[in-house]
Order: sequence, then C-alpha cells, then structure tokens
Amino acid sequence: MAFEAKKLINDPNNAVTEYIEGLMETYPGLQYLDGFPEVKVVLRADAAGGDYSKVAVISGGGSGHEPAQAGYVGEGMLTAAICGDIFASPPVDSILAGIRAVTGPMGCLLIVTNYTGDRLYFGLAAEQAKSEGYKVETVIVGDDCALPPRRGIVGRRGLAGTILVNKIAGAAAEAGLPLSDVAAEAKRASELVGTMGVALSVCTLPGQVTSDRLGPGKMELGLGIHGEPGAAVADFQPVDIIVSHVLKEILSTETGYVPIKRGNRVVVMVNGLGATPMMELMITCGKVVPRLQLEHGLAVDRVYTGSFMTSLDMSGFSITVMKSDQAILQRLDAPTKAPHWPVAVDGTKSNRPPAKIPIPMPASRVTKSDESLSRPTQLTPEGHILEVAIEAAANAIINIKDDLNEWDGKVGDGDCGSTMHKGAMAVLEDMKKYYPLNDAAETINEIGLSIKRVMGGTSGIIYLIFCKAAYAQLKASAQVTAKEWLEALEAAIAAVSKYGGASAGYRTLLDALIPASEVLKERLNAGDDPSAAFALSSEAALAGAESTQHMQAQAGRSTYVSEEALATAPDPGAMAAASWYRAVALAVKDNCSAP
Amino acid sequence: MAFEAKKLINDPNNAVTEYIEGLMETYPGLQYLDGFPEVKVVLRADAAGGDYSKVAVISGGGSGHEPAQAGYVGEGMLTAAICGDIFASPPVDSILAGIRAVTGPMGCLLIVTNYTGDRLYFGLAAEQAKSEGYKVETVIVGDDCALPPRRGIVGRRGLAGTILVNKIAGAAAEAGLPLSDVAAEAKRASELVGTMGVALSVCTLPGQVTSDRLGPGKMELGLGIHGEPGAAVADFQPVDIIVSHVLKEILSTETGYVPIKRGNRVVVMVNGLGATPMMELMITCGKVVPRLQLEHGLAVDRVYTGSFMTSLDMSGFSITVMKSDQAILQRLDAPTKAPHWPVAVDGTKSNRPPAKIPIPMPASRVTKSDESLSRPTQLTPEGHILEVAIEAAANAIINIKDDLNEWDGKVGDGDCGSTMHKGAMAVLEDMKKYYPLNDAAETINEIGLSIKRVMGGTSGIIYLIFCKAAYAQLKASAQVTAKEWLEALEAAIAAVSKYGGASAGYRTLLDALIPASEVLKERLNAGDDPSAAFALSSEAALAGAESTQHMQAQAGRSTYVSEEALATAPDPGAMAAASWYRAVALAVKDNCSAP
Repeated sequence: MAFEAKKLINDPNNAVTEYIEGLMETYPGLQYLDGFPEVKVVLRADAAGGDYSKVAVISGGGSGHEPAQAGYVGEGMLTAAICGDIFASPPVDSILAGIRAVTGPMGCLLIVTNYTGDRLYFGLAAEQAKSEGYKVETVIVGDDCALPPRRGIVGRRGLAGTILVNKIAGAAAEAGLPLSDVAAEAKRASELVGTMGVALSVCTLPGQVTSDRLGPGKMELGLGIHGEPGAAVADFQPVDIIVSHVLKEILSTETGYVPIKRGNRVVVMVNGLGATPMMELMITCGKVVPRLQLEHGLAVDRVYTGSFMTSLDMSGFSITVMKSDQAILQRLDAPTKAPHWPVAVDGTKSNRPPAKIPIPMPASRVTKSDESLSRPTQLTPEGHILEVAIEAAANAIINIKDDLNEWDGKVGDGDCGSTMHKGAMAVLEDMKKYYPLNDAAETINEIGLSIKRVMGGTSGIIYLIFCKAAYAQLKASAQVTAKEWLEALEAAIAAVSKYGGASAGYRTLLDALIPASEVLKERLNAGDDPSAAFALSSEAALAGAESTQHMQAQAGRSTYVSEEALATAPDPGAMAAASWYRAVALAVKDNCSAP
Repeated sequence: MAFEAKKLINDPNNAVTEYIEGLMETYPGLQYLDGFPEVKVVLRADAAGGDYSKVAVISGGGSGHEPAQAGYVGEGMLTAAICGDIFASPPVDSILAGIRAVTGPMGCLLIVTNYTGDRLYFGLAAEQAKSEGYKVETVIVGDDCALPPRRGIVGRRGLAGTILVNKIAGAAAEAGLPLSDVAAEAKRASELVGTMGVALSVCTLPGQVTSDRLGPGKMELGLGIHGEPGAAVADFQPVDIIVSHVLKEILSTETGYVPIKRGNRVVVMVNGLGATPMMELMITCGKVVPRLQLEHGLAVDRVYTGSFMTSLDMSGFSITVMKSDQAILQRLDAPTKAPHWPVAVDGTKSNRPPAKIPIPMPASRVTKSDESLSRPTQLTPEGHILEVAIEAAANAIINIKDDLNEWDGKVGDGDCGSTMHKGAMAVLEDMKKYYPLNDAAETINEIGLSIKRVMGGTSGIIYLIFCKAAYAQLKASAQVTAKEWLEALEAAIAAVSKYGGASAGYRTLLDALIPASEVLKERLNAGDDPSAAFALSSEAALAGAESTQHMQAQAGRSTYVSEEALATAPDPGAMAAASWYRAVALAVKDNCSAP
C-alpha cells in the first residue's frame, strides 16, 4: 500500500535550506551564503572573502545525498559545497556565488559528478568565472561500474568515489600545490576509482508516497542515487553473495572500468545509502575486505565504512574500490576538519597490530575448580560454626518454601519458594563436598557460586553479587571477627543496592537486610556481646521483611502489580532473606559465645 | 503484510561477531579478544596488556545500538567496549575478560546503562574484578525522560546520554586523573543529562519479520531502544511540533529529571535511531537549537548531530540535553581517536563567526544590464560584418526549422527546430536593441545570453557555454583577426566537449563544428585567404553533420533510440550547427576579403 513517507521535515520545499540551517547549528566552522532559496552554498568560515591563499576545492550537485557534499567542507577537504534542490543540479548563479566567495589568487578546482545537468551548470559557471578573471579547473567523476560500457558518456554516473576524489584534491590543495597539480591529482584519482551499489529499498522524496517498486525479497543491483531503477533486479541474498557479485562487476577485466589487477594495492569504501544501519555496513565491510584480498589478490590499504553519499532514505550500500599508492594514501591520511570525513582509518602504523588478541587470564587464580577444593577433614572452631550456620540457613529456606511460593503467587510469578529451595539444596550438597569451611571468605564465595549454578534469573545473580562483595571484603581482612562480618554484610548490601538499583523501601530483600545491618552495627558499637547483637539484628530483619507488605514496589517484577494486590502479602524475597539471616543468627548464638 | 526484513547479514546468529570483524577491517587502532562467540570485547590496541597507565573506561551492553559502544573505543574515550548479543546484556565472563585486558594499576570505570541485566552483570563482574585486586568503580546512566517518575528504578532507561558520559569520563581518564575523580565526573555528568526519543518505525531483529505495530501516519513518543513500545502513540506531525513536545518533556519542571532551568547553558545531541537519513537529523537539529534558545531560555554550547546510539533499523530520533559548564565542555572538546565521536563540533573559537554571510559581488561587472548596453550608432567595418553574419546565421536557422523538427521527430522528441527557432528570433531581436557589435567578444557573450533566455534544456545551456568560452578567449585578445576567431571556435568546442561530455563521433553538434575547426586551422596555417578558408571549413561542417546519419548516439536523448531509427535522419543539432556556421561563412565571404 502506498502512503506518504514519514520524514522529519516541516515543508518538503524547504528541506535543503533547513538541512543547511541544522548543519550550521552543529558545526561552528561552517558558513553559508545569504541567498536562500536559490543560492545554497556552504563554505569554510576561514576561507571566505576572496583572499584565500590556497587552491579552493569546490564540489556540489543535487541534494539528497547527505552528508555529501556539504558535510565534507572543512580544512583539508572541500572549501565550499554548492547544494542544489533534492536530486537537481544547482543553478549556475549559485555555483558562481560559491566560486566567487572562496576563490583567491591560486584559483579553484570544481569536482563535478558525471550527470548532464551538473556538467553543464558547473561548466557554464566555470566559463563565466574564467571570464571574470578566476583561474578555474574542472574534474568530472564518473565512477559507476554498473552499466555496460559503450553507452557513451551517459553510462558512468558519479557515485561515492567522488568523496575520495574530494579528499585527495582537498589534501593536495591544503599542501599548497598550484591549481594544475591539484587538478591533475584529482583527475588521476577519478581514473583509478570504481563504484557499484545495491538497493534494498527505493528512496522517497519528501512529501511523496513511498514506492512499492522493490518488493519483499528483491534487491536492485547497480543502483542510481536518484531513485531511478537499478541495472537489474534480483532475489535478495546473504550479504556475502551480494558482495562477491558486486566486487566482480567493479573489477571486471571485460569492462576495464578500473585499472586494477591482481597484486595491486587498493583502498575501499563501504557506503550506506541513507537508511542502512552501521551494524549492517560493518558486516558488509567484513565480507568485502577478505574477498578483495583472497579472491582478487589485492592488498587493502584503507577501509572507509559509513554513510558518505546517500540517496535520501534508501536502504542498501555501494562499494567503491580505488587503486592506491603512497601518493594517494598520503592525501587520504592527511588531517582534515571536514565533519564527515571518517577518522581513525589512517594507517599511520604501517604494520597494524593483530586484530585478534588472546583473552587475558585472571590476575590471580581465585575461582578454584571443583577438583582443587574439598571440605577440610578437620574443622577449626570457626569452621564448625560456619558449617552449622550455613546448614541452618539452608534448612530455614527449605522449610519456608511453600509460604514463599504462596506470597509470590500474590505479588509475582509464584516461584520464589521453589527457586530459593533449589539454591538451598545446592548449598547443602556442595558444602559437604568442597566448601573450604575453615576459610570464611572462600566459603562465602562458594555459596554464591552454588546459588548461581541452580538459580536462574535476577535472584540468582543478586545473591551471587551479594556473596561476591562479602567475599572481597572478608578476603581483605587478616582475621574474621564480628566486626569483619558486619563489614562484609554492609559491602554485600551496598553492592546489591548499587547494581540492583534498589534501596530501603523498594520492597526487596534489602528491606530485611538493611535494618539488620543497622541494628548489628549499633549494638556492636555499643559494646554488646556479638552473638547477642547478631540475634537482635535478626529480629530487625524479620520486622523489616514483614513491613514490606505495606510498601509499593519500586524494583523488579512487582512494579507492575497493583497496590491492592501488594497489600495482601509481604515481599517473598525479603521474607526469605530474613528467614536465613535469623536462622544463622540463632545457630551462631547456640554454638558460641564469641563468633 | 509481514515479511522477513532485508538485512545485510549472512547468519542472524553471527551478526554481532561479523560486525566486530568489519570494525577491525575499518579501524586499525582497534583490537578484539579472541573469545567469539561468548566474549565480544573491542579494545584499544594501544591499551591492552594490563599495564595501561591511565584509568581504563569501559562501557557496553547489548548490541544493536551501533556505533555504540564499540565505535567509541579510542584514545580519549572508551578503553574497551563489551558487546552483548543483540539487545542482550553481555555475559559476566566477557565483561571480566574486558576488565582484565585493559585495566592497569590506575583501575577502571564501568559505565553501565540502566537496565536490570546490564546493572547486574556488570555489577557482578565489578565485584569479581575487585576480589582479584582490580580497582573498579561503576557509574550507572539512566537518562530517559519519557516515562513518568516514581516508578522506581525501572523507569529511567539508559539512552544516548550515555555517549556524552563516556566522552567526559574518557577525557578525564586521558587527562591522567585518578579513578575516584574520573568516576565522580562521570557520575556528575549522568545526573545532568536527559533524553527522549521518537520512533517512526519499529526495529526488526535479524532474521525476523518486520512488525506492523506502527502504521502509516503514526509515531511513538518516548521510545525504548530495544523494540519495546514507546510511552505513547500519536499522529505523525511536522518535525517542528515533535521537537517542541520532546523538549518540553525533557525539561519538564514537573518531573525534574534534569536540573536545567532558564538561563543555564547546555549541550545537545540529536541522535538518529539507525535508519534516519542525515538530512532529516540536520533538519531536526535546526529546529531543536532555536527552540532551546528562544522558548526555554538556554544557551546552547555544543550540538552533536548524527546516529550515535541506534536501535537496529529503527527510524526516528532522540534528543539529549545536558547541562554544561566549562568543566564539561573541556571534556567534550578534548581530542579523541574514537572513530565515531563527532568531529568539528568543538567550539575552540568561543565566538563563532556568523553562520550566514553575504553573497559576494562579481569580481568585475562583466554582464551588463540591458540598460547599460545599446547597439552602437556607428558600426566599424568589423562590426558591420559581424551584424550581417549574425543575421545570416539566425535566418539560416529560421529557414531550416521544419527540417530540424522532422529529423528530430525520427531520433528525438521532435522540437529541435522549434527550440532553435526561438533562439534565432531572440538573437535577431536583441541584436537590434543592444548588441555592442563593434566589440566582438561582448557581442558573442550577448548571443549566448539571448539564446539562454529563450531556449530551455540542454541545448540552451550548451550554446551558452559555447558562447561563454568563445567570449573568454576573444576577450583575452588585443585584436580580433581570423586567427583569434579560430582560437575562439576551438575554445568553444573544447568547453562544450568537456562539460557536455561528447566528442567527435558522438552524433552531436560537435560532428559539424570539429571538422570545420580542423579545416579552418589547416587552411589558415597553409596561408589561405581567411574568408576562403572559412568558406571551405563550412563545407566540412555540412559534410560532418550529414555523416551523423550513420553514427550511433553516444550522448543526449538519442542514446535511447535504436540504430535503425537513427539511420533514417542526421542529428538535428549537428545540422543546425552546420547551417548557421555555413551561413556565417558565406556572409563573411560576401562582405569582405579579409575578415
């Protein structure tokens, strides 16, 4: 069904002038001539005034190919860009205005794409400028390799290869060369470059309805960049196959469009047509380079991937291949302030480091494999207490399983008890086998791993973070007393809060643990007996967990549940935490006077 | 109708790894860890090895947001990017591998988008890394302003504001600051930034069918970047209206999401969502900045326009506003080698030059207005001959009108005679009024202008170029003899050939004029009487024009006509040229012995 294309514009007739206004807001180094709507000329703010001391390099043509050409205006590339209306050559007077604005005594080079309108209008402007005393040279770029040869001058359209010619000429001009040399470098570059494109969709002009010319499952090979049909329609294929075909066409010895043969060096541009995501362009690029190297026997010096010369909202890409040598690379690598010339492509290091490097090993072997761990045959007093406490905690969770499921059925998906039960069972099982109970830090770390092994989803990782943070804290301590346990609890709470995003009052397990840690800290600071302080803090945990029944959810799945439903049950995660915490506290109290 | 999206991929399951391979081909300064498919880590080639001497800045998350985050890896920005599968948090082990690969003694900062998965996985990796002895800080970015507040931690998603936080942290790290300071700058930046987006289309995962959730004429406000529905659906509007709404939401004092009020300074990012053409982004930007200034009373320090954090092939944009100050601008302006950080935005000149500058006047007044020109009351002998010759040429075209139309009916669109007739009539009319006939150069220039005034299309501009080039050549001569006329003819032919793209044998007017100029040159060089040489050359013009009947077309509209049809008539453009050329030659011969 045809419908008007959704475009981020106000008035289709003002699209180009409003584009230029946006360009000005973005790039302070650009200016434009006050001649809207006919004169749409973007120029270097530092080159205007007619006394520019280097050769001016000017390109342009119809708009709709953004960022071409205005996006390439900047020191080291274009001095000015002449923008026509969408897909229409700019008027002669606007070209002349651009020439007059930036051309100084060194003259100017016009780089023109090979379309009849562009050739004639730029040509007429060049002749007029010459008669006004300006030195003007013109280079015409026709890099299209899609159409068969011998159709005369209409065959080879100017496509993305023009951008490389612009850069080479711009760098030559920046280097201070005279006009004849700048023109010669541009002309040479234009003769070394070939481009072919593939369209997955047809572009739509502002204010017009979308075309259904190119239906599902079809692509056009040898596209034009003005919405005209491509050279052929074919079934859509994986990109590897498309790339293979396109490269063969560009490098065809039958057409001889580019003077590139096996053993040569090249640069390549993978160009998006306006609506092609960067991911797809990079995937395409990743197919282009190895094929050039392996199938065509070429060395690839530089790769430019991005949307450089587009066709409004067309989806698809073009590939440009240019024969390279040191002279060309020097121009392409030369610095530029043009906003849209791709950076970070220059190969100043002639031997780039290998792309793929090994994954580094952990700084220290902290996560021991199962084999290397085993339950100590002889437990220290502390190890014994730890074992009893862990056993009590796990059993508390096992005993409360059905209650947890029931509460979770009211405020969540009803599996909290079953999930926690799995974790508890895994802890009991693993502890017998290999928890190094005499080492509190390592044991806590193992608890986290046991839980993560069997508990999926958010709750598993939350407990793993809890244990990991406690472990890091305990590990940093020479001995483990009540004070260190408190610090470990605080570190664990901080980590869960930070990464889980919840804090007190969010209706999570922290509503049990935060009150507990606060009471524990307060009582220890007050000089209470540690096991008594611990027991007292576990009452705070329980009270905190029960208070969640009247809280609104601020984190996790319960945020989607109504207030009324939430008021029918406490948060099961908080109740589970209070339950194991209290079991541990009581076990400690029963087994020692000073943990 | 739903159909599988056309994407430039090979295997949907390998999209991210193949993306990274393309990235490596393009940017020699990047490396990746050898851990595909689970470990997808892109890092600075010069920072790997664990002895990196500055704070490492690491970001990441699910893929599908290219160029984020891998495209921001580079000196001065990210040290590493951890890439998950499309829209999925990266596994903990891959995050850890990235931390270990680039973190040296100064430690690392993790910049994490506010999604539960990213928070937990990066959090766990951070805790694990700390237990291995690394210094690690984490900053979480939740800049979304679309959803109403008080939904707890799930509300504010991490969007394009993250890119600005990355840059600020990266620049702070590059400046050599310690981890705590780098983290503090990143955290502060995260608290000063707000983003809201608008989707015009729904993104499609590789290998899946496109959704028709968002039909013609609709848009989603407050988009997520993972294909989830936006906060609201509305009728599509001109971009100015959309921008106005989005800015009000971001800067709402009711939600208070960003601490920005009238009189503050800001930086702004206009971000494309993957399939939004640059033209539309710039148009959007051109609406954003004035509204921020005029409606919201803000000073806009920097504007970043482009596709920075996308959602696969989604069409639409997001706007990010960050409160700015000198500290922030210093970080944003600091140089970076990250490939996708936008260049040319920095405002090193605090007072940017005015965007709009006047159109320069022509260097010299060469095109006189009608009033200033008039036919001389007294003609020189040369002026008289010129008048007679022009009159003869125009009459020849007038007389041959019907023949030209007939020939053109066979090989073109049948109006060549009528078009040329218009030009001839205009020349006769204008000549009487104001051709400065005693000045040959200026008269030729006026002929071109007369023709252009009434002859549309290609033929008009071709003759204007012809006259303009002849004019420039004649003007450069002190006196005008036969030799100068020959040089003017040669210059005119060269210009038409260059800009029109045709040469001998292309079945154009050049097939009359090139033989004529060659014979003229030959005879003049041989010492013939100029008027005799001229007459002889006009016979060559006629013979050349007639020979076009057996030529294939290589230029212009006739290239689309079959060989058989072409053989039925000569090229009407060539016949017209031969006709006026011969008329001029005979007029010259009749009126003088030495022109």
